[in-house]
Amino acid sequence: MRVAGKDYLTVKFEEETLYLIDQNLLPFSFSIKECKTWEETCIAIRNMTVRGAGAIGAAAGFAMAQAFISSDDPETAMHRIKATRPTARDLFYAVDRVFHAGLLSVQVSIDEARKIADENVAAAKSIGKFGETLIADGARILTHCNAGWLGFVDYGSALSPVYMAHRGGKSVFVYADETRPRSQGARLTAWELANEGIDHKIVADNAGAYLMSKGMIDLVIVGADRIAANGDVANKIGTYEKAILAKHFGIPFFVAAPLSTFDLATPDGNNIEIEERSSDEVNYQTGPDAEGRIHTIRVSNPGSDAFNPAFDVTPAEFITGIITEKGIVQANSKEIRRLF
Amino acid sequence: MRVAGKDYLTVKFEEETLYLIDQNLLPFSFSIKECKTWEETCIAIRNMTVRGAGAIGAAAGFAMAQAFISSDDPETAMHRIKATRPTARDLFYAVDRVFHAGLLSVQVSIDEARKIADENVAAAKSIGKFGETLIADGARILTHCNAGWLGFVDYGSALSPVYMAHRGGKSVFVYADETRPRSQGARLTAWELANEGIDHKIVADNAGAYLMSKGMIDLVIVGADRIAANGDVANKIGTYEKAILAKHFGIPFFVAAPLSTFDLATPDGNNIEIEERSSDEVNYQTGPDAEGRIHTIRVSNPGSDAFNPAFDVTPAEFITGIITEKGIVQANSKEIRRLF
Repeated sequence: MRVAGKDYLTVKFEEETLYLIDQNLLPFSFSIKECKTWEETCIAIRNMTVRGAGAIGAAAGFAMAQAFISSDDPETAMHRIKATRPTARDLFYAVDRVFHAGLLSVQVSIDEARKIADENVAAAKSIGKFGETLIADGARILTHCNAGWLGFVDYGSALSPVYMAHRGGKSVFVYADETRPRSQGARLTAWELANEGIDHKIVADNAGAYLMSKGMIDLVIVGADRIAANGDVANKIGTYEKAILAKHFGIPFFVAAPLSTFDLATPDGNNIEIEERSSDEVNYQTGPDAEGRIHTIRVSNPGSDAFNPAFDVTPAEFITGIITEKGIVQANSKEIRRLF
Repeated sequence: MRVAGKDYLTVKFEEETLYLIDQNLLPFSFSIKECKTWEETCIAIRNMTVRGAGAIGAAAGFAMAQAFISSDDPETAMHRIKATRPTARDLFYAVDRVFHAGLLSVQVSIDEARKIADENVAAAKSIGKFGETLIADGARILTHCNAGWLGFVDYGSALSPVYMAHRGGKSVFVYADETRPRSQGARLTAWELANEGIDHKIVADNAGAYLMSKGMIDLVIVGADRIAANGDVANKIGTYEKAILAKHFGIPFFVAAPLSTFDLATPDGNNIEIEERSSDEVNYQTGPDAEGRIHTIRVSNPGSDAFNPAFDVTPAEFITGIITEKGIVQANSKEIRRLF
């Protein structure tokens, strides 16, 4: 996708170095982080320089290839890469594929990691084409968190249909949930939409029921971090709330995700590990003042602690359909099994 | 209530001057704002130095009395005071009462404003006693925004039962919704609870469905800005979401409010005006850095705008009961009429 007239990939591998758009600095500054070793890539995944299931998966695949390149013990590396984040299915999927490829040769591991990244781009593009059919001209769409191209290698999952609809000449309007505590909606989704020239407004996460009750939302599309065999979907905290609301108000609620996000070994959502992150994410915010100087400030009572689950699991019954690169399916085990 | 061992009221009137705890500076600094004229009090209401339905009502009553004291045209003053905020019923209730009293004499207007403030304290205390019966020992309570003593002259509405339960020796735990965009939960409710020594954690507004689905919430209590004749409740944006979730998960959802918040002239929630506030509230946050220096920082994409409705209306069907100073009633017109 384009940033200020130039094409970028969220995750790019060249000559043993992984180049990542630094998502901790966006939207206030645009910079590329270089990870020369698999350990550096691990740090970038853990501290969310790169985030979003698809982008994490691609980065983790390259990390595994970097471990083979540097001839470090690949099994130790594999375990350490897998330990960076617990919820996103794509991470485990990519690391396993590259690990097995690397047992043949270093070059095969690199090729496999590249293949995963290429597949991610192709899947996102295909998700866009299928998903675009759900978007009527003039549609007003609510999305949560960032499942745009920054969460993938390119295009995105939830936002890919929006981009395709817009490029196809449809008028679309996106309400971007702020998505506290890390505000990926206000920071990343809004940044992507502004760069693509798509009409949008940021809303506090609290505004969902208001918007839906006033008839201001035609469609909800979100991404996914892991989809269980029965169609339960782990995604950014707050997704479950929006799904319950959408069902209550009779608004279609779609999840967009590539096959690499499905985890058929996990029977249902109860078996998905939910990452609990630092209370600092709730208690502090970082951004520029009017002069552009970046500060980290306390935004809550200094004497109080926060509880910060990073994801929730939306039961399949709340999901109208899942948009995949192979088409739109219902969130049930029968339709999901047929995809594979 | 006590702050660092000293007793305070949120709103206090002495010798023609209104003293307000400056809620825009809390929780990072505690300071009292002096409003010597009704115009200064209007500014304080509009910029949310004082906020929360009960506290706004008391302040507005004193503003009206200040207008009589200064012999300004009371009718013009009345309209300007009423124009400070549109949603809280208590504001209009208090201004009307003091306006009519002031037609007799300046002293009567002052007495009436004092009476409204005293009634607010008594109502809050009584709400606490009735509401306390709903709280079992060990209860885990979710609250939204701040309906504590900072939102009243003293005690609060939603938090008054919590304080009474705690003082009565019950163990209580409060999850305080952050309540974006102004974060009254993270800033004010958490500050109040910390001062009272009540166990609590701040959660992002997005965590509601997660907490409820995991069985971590026994009871939801919120305040109200205006209650229509049929029991529909206007309250801080996001309240409606939590009410829908609570019903979905079978968790009791109570609203706590004094009679002054009921507006029998408004038949239902569709007739309640919802204030739309500046997008800056979503886009910027203010707080101290590690050295205690206060900064206002951008927390969203600088090229994007936000939509910021300040309240929503929860339909009566989602409300288990309304805790008033006259007892707990069901949210329907018959029971509400019986209160008056």
